Amino acid sequence: MKKYTSIHDIKNLNEAIESAKQLKQKPFQYEALGRHKTLVMLFFNSSLRTRLSTEKAAKNLGMDVMVLNVNDAWQLEFEDGMVMDTKTSEHVKDAAEVISQYADVIAVRAFPGLKNKQEDEAELVLKSFVKYSTVPVINMESSTAHPLQALTDAITISEFKEKVKPKVVLSWAPHPKALPQAVPNSFVQMMQLMQADFRITHPEGYELNPKITKNTPIYYDQEEAVKDADFVYVKNWSSYKDYGKILSQDKNWMMTRGKLDKTKFMHCLPVRRNVVAEDAVLDSENSLIIPQAHNRTFAAQWVLKQILEQI
Amino acid sequence: MKKYTSIHDIKNLNEAIESAKQLKQKPFQYEALGRHKTLVMLFFNSSLRTRLSTEKAAKNLGMDVMVLNVNDAWQLEFEDGMVMDTKTSEHVKDAAEVISQYADVIAVRAFPGLKNKQEDEAELVLKSFVKYSTVPVINMESSTAHPLQALTDAITISEFKEKVKPKVVLSWAPHPKALPQAVPNSFVQMMQLMQADFRITHPEGYELNPKITKNTPIYYDQEEAVKDADFVYVKNWSSYKDYGKILSQDKNWMMTRGKLDKTKFMHCLPVRRNVVAEDAVLDSENSLIIPQAHNRTFAAQWVLKQILEQI
Amino acid sequence: MKKYTSIHDIKNLNEAIESAKQLKQKPFQYEALGRHKTLVMLFFNSSLRTRLSTEKAAKNLGMDVMVLNVNDAWQLEFEDGMVMDTKTSEHVKDAAEVISQYADVIAVRAFPGLKNKQEDEAELVLKSFVKYSTVPVINMESSTAHPLQALTDAITISEFKEKVKPKVVLSWAPHPKALPQAVPNSFVQMMQLMQADFRITHPEGYELNPKITKNTPIYYDQEEAVKDADFVYVKNWSSYKDYGKILSQDKNWMMTRGKLDKTKFMHCLPVRRNVVAEDAVLDSENSLIIPQAHNRTFAAQWVLKQILEQI
Repeated sequence: MKKYTSIHDIKNLNEAIESAKQLKQKPFQYEALGRHKTLVMLFFNSSLRTRLSTEKAAKNLGMDVMVLNVNDAWQLEFEDGMVMDTKTSEHVKDAAEVISQYADVIAVRAFPGLKNKQEDEAELVLKSFVKYSTVPVINMESSTAHPLQALTDAITISEFKEKVKPKVVLSWAPHPKALPQAVPNSFVQMMQLMQADFRITHPEGYELNPKITKNTPIYYDQEEAVKDADFVYVKNWSSYKDYGKILSQDKNWMMTRGKLDKTKFMHCLPVRRNVVAEDAVLDSENSLIIPQAHNRTFAAQWVLKQILEQI
Repeated sequence: MKKYTSIHDIKNLNEAIESAKQLKQKPFQYEALGRHKTLVMLFFNSSLRTRLSTEKAAKNLGMDVMVLNVNDAWQLEFEDGMVMDTKTSEHVKDAAEVISQYADVIAVRAFPGLKNKQEDEAELVLKSFVKYSTVPVINMESSTAHPLQALTDAITISEFKEKVKPKVVLSWAPHPKALPQAVPNSFVQMMQLMQADFRITHPEGYELNPKITKNTPIYYDQEEAVKDADFVYVKNWSSYKDYGKILSQDKNWMMTRGKLDKTKFMHCLPVRRNVVAEDAVLDSENSLIIPQAHNRTFAAQWVLKQILEQI
Repeated sequence: MKKYTSIHDIKNLNEAIESAKQLKQKPFQYEALGRHKTLVMLFFNSSLRTRLSTEKAAKNLGMDVMVLNVNDAWQLEFEDGMVMDTKTSEHVKDAAEVISQYADVIAVRAFPGLKNKQEDEAELVLKSFVKYSTVPVINMESSTAHPLQALTDAITISEFKEKVKPKVVLSWAPHPKALPQAVPNSFVQMMQLMQADFRITHPEGYELNPKITKNTPIYYDQEEAVKDADFVYVKNWSSYKDYGKILSQDKNWMMTRGKLDKTKFMHCLPVRRNVVAEDAVLDSENSLIIPQAHNRTFAAQWVLKQILEQI
C-alpha cells in the first residue's frame, strides 16, 4: 500500500480485517518491520484517540514517532504561483517535501472549515501532502473522510457480528455544534463494501453527499430504520446540502435504550452523553464504544504494516 | 502497587527509599521490565521537572512514553447523568477508559482552582481517572497532593541525614501568587511517616488542613522553629482556612543565610529567588535543591517499577 | 566537542564535512553510541526543520529525545541578584541545572526580539544555558547564529561543488517581515572558513555586523555580484545598523531565473515563493533547497556524535 487516504486504498477488505485481528493477538510480532523507520504525525487539529492509537500502533511495529501539533501556527500556502507576501510563510510543496526528508511515513489530520463545501471537498491539505510528499501519507481524518475509523469499525463489526450479513444502521443524532461528515462518509463507504444489510436514518435535510451514499436506503423514520438492527452506529453530522449548518437539534433523535433491543451500539467517540445517546445506551453491555477505541490501534497498525512492507 | 495517588500507597517506606537509591546507582538495570509497556502522561497543567523526570524514569525502565498536554483545550465532564449539550464534550469515564486502551500506566497532573475548597478537595480529575481507568494511575500533582515530590524529598533526606532522627522544619515563605497546598501537604504526611523530629512554621492563618497536619507541632515564630534544624524545607502556599487567599507577603519570612547554620536547605523548585529564599541560601553548599531535582527521576522510577511488577 | 554554539566549535571543518557525509551513507552505524543517553530539546520559538532533523539525528544515534515547547509560558529570570517578585518565576541558573539532571545533552532555540541590539547580542538564553547547564549545549538557532544550518550548508556545497574553490554569493532578498541575522551570520562565518571565493550582496543599509563580515567583499549591485557564481545563497534579514528594521522591500532583489545561469540556488527554508525567489528558481534543477533540508539531519548527527564521544 502506497498511501491510506480513503478506505478504497484497501485492496482486500476481508484480508485486512483478519490481518488486523491477528495483530491484536500479537501486537509486537512485527516490531522488526519498523526498525529505523520514522512516522511523522502532523496535527492541524487536536486529537486524543487518533494521536494515541496511531502512535501506539507505530511503536508496536518498532517505529520511531515524531508528533507535530501545528494547529494554526503554521500558515501554509496551497495555491501555485502565489506571491507570498502576506499571510502564508511556507508553501505546502516545500513543507511536504522537507518533512519527507525526516519521515518514512507522514500522517496528517486536517478538519474541514464547514464554511465552503467546494473548498472542503478539494481536501487541499491532505491532497497536497499526498502530491508533494515523497513518502507514503496516511489520513488521520480529513475534511471528508476518516478511513482509520472506518477500518476500526469494520474490524469491530466483524468481531461482534453473529450473522454473515448483519443489519447495520447509521443513525444521525443531535449535537450542539456543527460537526464534519468525515466519520459518517467513511462508515457508509465501508458498509457498502462489507457484507451488511445497511441503511441510513436522519431527519430530512441531513442527506450525506449522494456520490457517497449512492443506492444506500435512507429512512427519515429512525424507529422504522433501527428495528431489528444488529448494529446501530450513531453519529451527528452537519448538513451537507445546506453546507455545515445545524438544521435540527431534535432530542427525539437521541439514541435511547428503549429504541434498541439487543442491538449493538457503536460510536467513534468523543460522545456527548444524554445528547447523542443516553447513559443507559452507552453503559449497556451492548455498547461497543470501548472495543472500537481499542481497535483503533490495530486498524492503524495494519495500515502502517502494509505501508512498511512496500517501502 | 496498583496506583500511586498518595504517599499512603507506599507499603514500606524504608524499602522504597533503599530501592530508589539502588535505581540511582544502576538506572538501566530493569529496562527489560518496561519493554512493550506504555506510559501516557496527561498534563492538565504545564510541567517541567515532573514531565522530564517521569519520562526519563519510564525510559530508564524501557517503557514507551506518550505525552499529552491537554491544558484547557479538553472540556471534560465529571458529573454523572449530565445532559452534555453545552461546554463539555467528553465524559471523563469515557476518556479514562479510552486512554486505558493505549496505555499500561496513566500519569495525570491537575492543579486546583484555589477558588472552591470543597471542589479542590474532591480531586475530581485524579479520582475520576483512578475510578474509570482500567490501568494503574500515577498522581503527577493533584489539587491536594504531590506524592512523587514527597518521595523524592524522603530519598534526599535519607541521603543527607547525619542522625537517625533528624530535626526537619517545613517553613512557609512569601510569594506574589496564590499557590496550592499540594507540596506541603505531601511533605507533611511524608515526615509523619519518617523518623524525624518534624515541625511546621508559618504565619497565623496559614494552617494547612488539620486532617493532614494532625499532631505535628506548629510554630508561628520561624526563628524559634528552625533553630538547630538539620533540614529546612521552604515553600509558599496559599491559605487553607481563607481558602486560596494570600494573607501575607511578609518579607521577614524569606529564608536567609542568617537564619540557618549548617541546616540543609530544601525546595521543590521552581523558586523565586530573593522572595522565597535569598541567593546566599539557594547557592550555598547546604542547598539540596539540585539533588532533590535529580532524585525526582528515581522516585518516579521506583513508583513505575512497583506498578510494572504488578501488571 | 563540549558544546556547539557557533561554527567555531568545529575543530577541523573538512573532517566534519567528510564525517557527516559518511553518516549520511550509513545513518545507523553509531546507534550504540547514544544508548541510554537523552537529548532534551528546548524550544523558546517554534520549529519544523530543526525540530524534526535534530530529533531524527539523535534517534539515528540511538538516543532518547524529550521535546519541550516552552514558548512564552515559561518566564525565566536571567539577571543575577534579582528580587523575583513580579513576572519571572524561575531563574535560568536553576532551570538549566535542573534540566541537566534529566539530559545528557541540551539543545536550545531562542530567537532575538529584534528590538534591542545589545540585548540580542548578549545571547542571554543560549549563554545562560551554556553557563549553568552541567551537560553540553547545542544551539538550535539563537539571536545571532544558526550553526547547525551553516554546517548543513557547508556539507551541501561540498557535495555539489565542481571546483576546489567555488564562487559563492550570499544575496539579500525582500521579505514582508523583519527577520533575524542568525542564518546569514553563520553562513558568512562558514564561507570564511571554507575554500570559496565568497562575497555578499545587499542594498545599502543591510550591512551585517562588521565583526562577522570582516573583509568579505560587499556588493550593492546584485547582478554584478552573482555573475558567474557557482552557488547563490538567498536570504532575507532585517537591518543590523538600523537594528531590526525593514529598510527595503525592493522586488528587484527577488532572485529570478534570469539572474542565474547554472548557478546552484540555496535557501535554508521556509521561503516565501515569488517574494524571496521566484518559482522558476525554487523548482529548477539547480535548486538545492531539498538536499539542504536533508543534510540538516547529518549536520546535527555529526554534532551529536562529537558530543557523545566526549561524554
